[in-house]
Amino acid sequence: MEEFYLTEEADACTAAGKCEENKKHQSNKRAAATEERLLLHNQHPMKPWQHARARVKENVRCVWGILGSVGSVEWYCLGALGVLTALISFFMDLCVGKLLKAHSWLYNELQGYRLLQFLCWTLYPASLCTLSTMFSHSVCPQSAGSGLPEVRTMLLGLDMPDFLSLSNLFAKVVGLTCTLAAGSAVFLGKVSPFIHLSTMVGAFLDRLCVSIRGEENGMLVAAAAVGVASCFGAPISGVLFSIEATCTLFSVRNYCCCFFAAATGALTFRLLAVWNREQETVQALFKTSFSTDLPYYAPEILVFALLGLLCGAVARLFMHSFRWSLLFIRTNRVVSRMLATEKSFYSGMVAFILGTITFPHGAGQLMAAKLSMKQLLASLLDRQQWQVLSQNVSVMVPQKGHETLWLEWSPAGTSVFYTLGVFLIMKLWLLVLASTLPLPAGYFMPIFIYGAAIGRLVGEGLAYMFPNGIHSGSSSCLINPGGYALAGAAAFSGAVTHTVSPAILVLELTGQSTHAAPTLLAVLLANAVARSCRRPSLYDALSLVKQLPHLPSLLRIVSCLFPESRILLGSVHRLELESFLHHQTEGHNELKQLADGCSVQPVPVHISAESTVQQAYGVMSVLGVPQLYVTDHGRLRGIITWPQVICKMAKHTVVR
Amino acid sequence: MEEFYLTEEADACTAAGKCEENKKHQSNKRAAATEERLLLHNQHPMKPWQHARARVKENVRCVWGILGSVGSVEWYCLGALGVLTALISFFMDLCVGKLLKAHSWLYNELQGYRLLQFLCWTLYPASLCTLSTMFSHSVCPQSAGSGLPEVRTMLLGLDMPDFLSLSNLFAKVVGLTCTLAAGSAVFLGKVSPFIHLSTMVGAFLDRLCVSIRGEENGMLVAAAAVGVASCFGAPISGVLFSIEATCTLFSVRNYCCCFFAAATGALTFRLLAVWNREQETVQALFKTSFSTDLPYYAPEILVFALLGLLCGAVARLFMHSFRWSLLFIRTNRVVSRMLATEKSFYSGMVAFILGTITFPHGAGQLMAAKLSMKQLLASLLDRQQWQVLSQNVSVMVPQKGHETLWLEWSPAGTSVFYTLGVFLIMKLWLLVLASTLPLPAGYFMPIFIYGAAIGRLVGEGLAYMFPNGIHSGSSSCLINPGGYALAGAAAFSGAVTHTVSPAILVLELTGQSTHAAPTLLAVLLANAVARSCRRPSLYDALSLVKQLPHLPSLLRIVSCLFPESRILLGSVHRLELESFLHHQTEGHNELKQLADGCSVQPVPVHISAESTVQQAYGVMSVLGVPQLYVTDHGRLRGIITWPQVICKMAKHTVVR
Repeated sequence: MEEFYLTEEADACTAAGKCEENKKHQSNKRAAATEERLLLHNQHPMKPWQHARARVKENVRCVWGILGSVGSVEWYCLGALGVLTALISFFMDLCVGKLLKAHSWLYNELQGYRLLQFLCWTLYPASLCTLSTMFSHSVCPQSAGSGLPEVRTMLLGLDMPDFLSLSNLFAKVVGLTCTLAAGSAVFLGKVSPFIHLSTMVGAFLDRLCVSIRGEENGMLVAAAAVGVASCFGAPISGVLFSIEATCTLFSVRNYCCCFFAAATGALTFRLLAVWNREQETVQALFKTSFSTDLPYYAPEILVFALLGLLCGAVARLFMHSFRWSLLFIRTNRVVSRMLATEKSFYSGMVAFILGTITFPHGAGQLMAAKLSMKQLLASLLDRQQWQVLSQNVSVMVPQKGHETLWLEWSPAGTSVFYTLGVFLIMKLWLLVLASTLPLPAGYFMPIFIYGAAIGRLVGEGLAYMFPNGIHSGSSSCLINPGGYALAGAAAFSGAVTHTVSPAILVLELTGQSTHAAPTLLAVLLANAVARSCRRPSLYDALSLVKQLPHLPSLLRIVSCLFPESRILLGSVHRLELESFLHHQTEGHNELKQLADGCSVQPVPVHISAESTVQQAYGVMSVLGVPQLYVTDHGRLRGIITWPQVICKMAKHTVVR
Repeated sequence: MEEFYLTEEADACTAAGKCEENKKHQSNKRAAATEERLLLHNQHPMKPWQHARARVKENVRCVWGILGSVGSVEWYCLGALGVLTALISFFMDLCVGKLLKAHSWLYNELQGYRLLQFLCWTLYPASLCTLSTMFSHSVCPQSAGSGLPEVRTMLLGLDMPDFLSLSNLFAKVVGLTCTLAAGSAVFLGKVSPFIHLSTMVGAFLDRLCVSIRGEENGMLVAAAAVGVASCFGAPISGVLFSIEATCTLFSVRNYCCCFFAAATGALTFRLLAVWNREQETVQALFKTSFSTDLPYYAPEILVFALLGLLCGAVARLFMHSFRWSLLFIRTNRVVSRMLATEKSFYSGMVAFILGTITFPHGAGQLMAAKLSMKQLLASLLDRQQWQVLSQNVSVMVPQKGHETLWLEWSPAGTSVFYTLGVFLIMKLWLLVLASTLPLPAGYFMPIFIYGAAIGRLVGEGLAYMFPNGIHSGSSSCLINPGGYALAGAAAFSGAVTHTVSPAILVLELTGQSTHAAPTLLAVLLANAVARSCRRPSLYDALSLVKQLPHLPSLLRIVSCLFPESRILLGSVHRLELESFLHHQTEGHNELKQLADGCSVQPVPVHISAESTVQQAYGVMSVLGVPQLYVTDHGRLRGIITWPQVICKMAKHTVVR
């Protein structure tokens, strides 16, 4: 009976996807055997609906055969990676949105009760941060932090299974949702943890691939791209940011895979928004409506260049404070002890402090504290001139949607220069304080918003100096401070992370390509300032502090290599050697030379014991060989394999 | 007297840029010595205005010192590369524009004289093509063709000095100008030769760098990026296209250099247009004005995907014809003999045939032949529905500028489907015919326009099927055929060149980011179709036909290595060895061991004589070493140096 089913299925399969089956049979007989064994196991004679189940399985196999003939498993996995990550991103955004709305509703309901409002404002984020810390640390301690430095290390070839486990995925999703729901008081973002999240999804799909066809895809680079793409719905900058932030040497062969996965992710993310009736069609996330006829005058390019230099300088100040704070919480006895034992309490306390400072009836009204992260960015990218609007606030025409957000920046007619200045000064150290929180959180989005505020300040200043625009020739156009905010956001985030791709990110985020050229200029200049004197980037600094493994000398590994020394002649295939030995033992009378029976393969590259692991790593990856022969004066000292290189690297720490 | 001037200058220099001077003195004393010698030579006692000249030189040195303290020479060279290439591009466009205008003026003046118009239409491009061929072949035969395959080979590390000479630059500039001035009848483009041009400029600046500070920059990758960027004013896609089309492994370290040079080039190119009053400010080259509120409905994404698949299929058809034509002109005796001896005649004849076929009073009126390349693209990207317009042509409101270009596509009320169909069928083989011309010309732009026409046809068809737009919910929006033209252009050019970056190029070219997501999708699908079964791309096909050098086995080189065999212990620095020998010869009584006097450096990597040049090349580039030791059983067989690897590769041809 069982025999019969199997044969039938095999026939159906052969008919449906003969070519695919053949390929499969040739390449991984082992996987097929496992499958058949499972099938046999499942078809226990006592199980019900045997015929129906067999037919379903048959159909599934047919579909699989057809799919396999259209494209390889790799591409389906890449597509699935994009869709899955986008789904996680979308539903996380949905949850965060609801939680933020609940907070805002509660706060507004308590209008008139100042104390209750204060408690609502401070305890809500404090409890969410405590929950986030507790949850992530109890389920998987590795889920705290941004995760991007670890992803970089993994992309270097290091195995860090703890960082790719399902429990980590779960902890990170819940923890990150809580962190983001704490809102703009805590001022933390989503991007870097999401890159980590999508890497975990990628690793999971990789394992699935292994079980299906017995080999890995290496989807980690693509996964990093998908993370950014499905956070912002920006596929192009997603790919470029992930290359810049995580790789040192990029194979152009991976380009298409990355783009495919990122495009799937971004498209799914945006289509979900359409399906949820947030948007009518696939649109940019922070759509702006700058004038396209005359977005800026040519002389303004100089101001954009100066803005880039300014952003670079502020980025150096920020990185200095950031590194100092990271050092402080490690060296200060009180804080480090608290972080070792009472993480949740520390999180709650810091969130409470942040809430107190940003309380809208206190200092918060000078920092537009009522706006959420998204609203902050949307308001800063506004094309209107706030200073002019705030002066004519009495004769204001009724506005709707995002166009009223600027009112938060000018409470009771306060000058916007004052509020923007307070925002910039306060948020710098508040962000540094928030970055010490031991919970899943990213720093890209806050940095991006901070940069937008710098740009806005410059833009408003320029608009104040030239109220009728910079004339050149007959026509005139007003200064658009939103354009400066755009360039500032890209330049500052580019300078902090040492990347150029934020210039493309703002283009995709806003759907506004009028300012592409000056933005790119500002980003390049900011990068030049930030990178001078070989300062580490944000992710470098985090890697250094976390003492993530680096590449030490090979000398530390060779001790485990063979003690005896023999001249290396070449290598012989195991199968050939076995058949040779078989012949010998079968009693053929003439004792042949090894070289007569087998073809001795020459060893193309020897490496000496004095070389570093970095060199071995480089040579292995460029030659694509799984092992290298370590020789000393031609004598074999040992063999170093790829897993050894990777594993030994993990035991040593950064010494930069 | 001379002494005195020199000292004074040295003092001034020290005061102005002491730090820079110190660095300079330490690093390249030789260059400084050469400079001083030149100075001495110049200051002949008979020369006039010695004081004034000395002061000028002093000032130049001071400025150089200050510049050197701001950034390294490399960055100035990159900037200069961008500016120079943009200048060439701009003035070439200016010349081509004037020549095209002259042709159009002459043609219109001859209105009524059909025969004279025919002669004007055919002989003008024929004579220009003849001139282009004659000039380029008499000055530098290597300047013919696109040049991109050669750039790819050079980026692999091969030296091809003929392709980087100044005479080639000159021949290419003049030849390309003539080719482009032949207009849309010949239907050839500018991009690939421009990449070659900017590579030549880059190589020239590289040589300048060598003479200034004694080391090369390796600006070739950046130069390729600048080429695209200053052709289209599109820095981002310039960098990405050059990476995809020319590299196989890209070092992320080069990212910033490439972006800086490309941004300088693009910005200069656009600012020159502002200066020339073509535009009021820095704008996209083919600015479109699609609706940003509702650019397309979500279900239309499916149509974009189908368009991508269609473009992929047509790209395969095109590549098949293209390869066939390349083979034909090599194997057909008549054509190959004519191409060997009468290149100019062949060019003139082909251009005459092309002109005859596209004559506007003949078949040309069904191909919108009167439009120039730029007008063709601008008209195809029009957002209006031509089919609707052509039906209501009697009640047409007066339009201006680009909005009347579509009239060429519907002469005397002909259906636009008919004209677009004729255009697609005719231009396919006309382009294949034009690609056989032995003159400097690119194929990217014609392919781009052809793809736009495919997209336009699909878009117009959809608009015809859904005249009131695809309804979904309450609101409705009309189909925008221009969006399909955009996606089609990107998808077809991406499919032919096997790149993804055209998706970003259309974004930058049109300044329209509403269609980014569906365009990327279409490009990816088109690539998937075009790349299946490992078909070569346009540039691969050209490389194969030109038999550009590939990487042969190392065995062919080792014959020139040392004949004696010695065990390799390590290497010793020349200076140390010299001082050791000096000590020995000075008569110190004890004869020391070499290892006591010098530090013997271990050799990290040995390579065996059986390895291939590709392996040697890979190992050298990943380790960054200038030579490798070739050993056999630990015995030194020879040393293989970087120039040797490169030079030996050049002697062997592709065997794919």
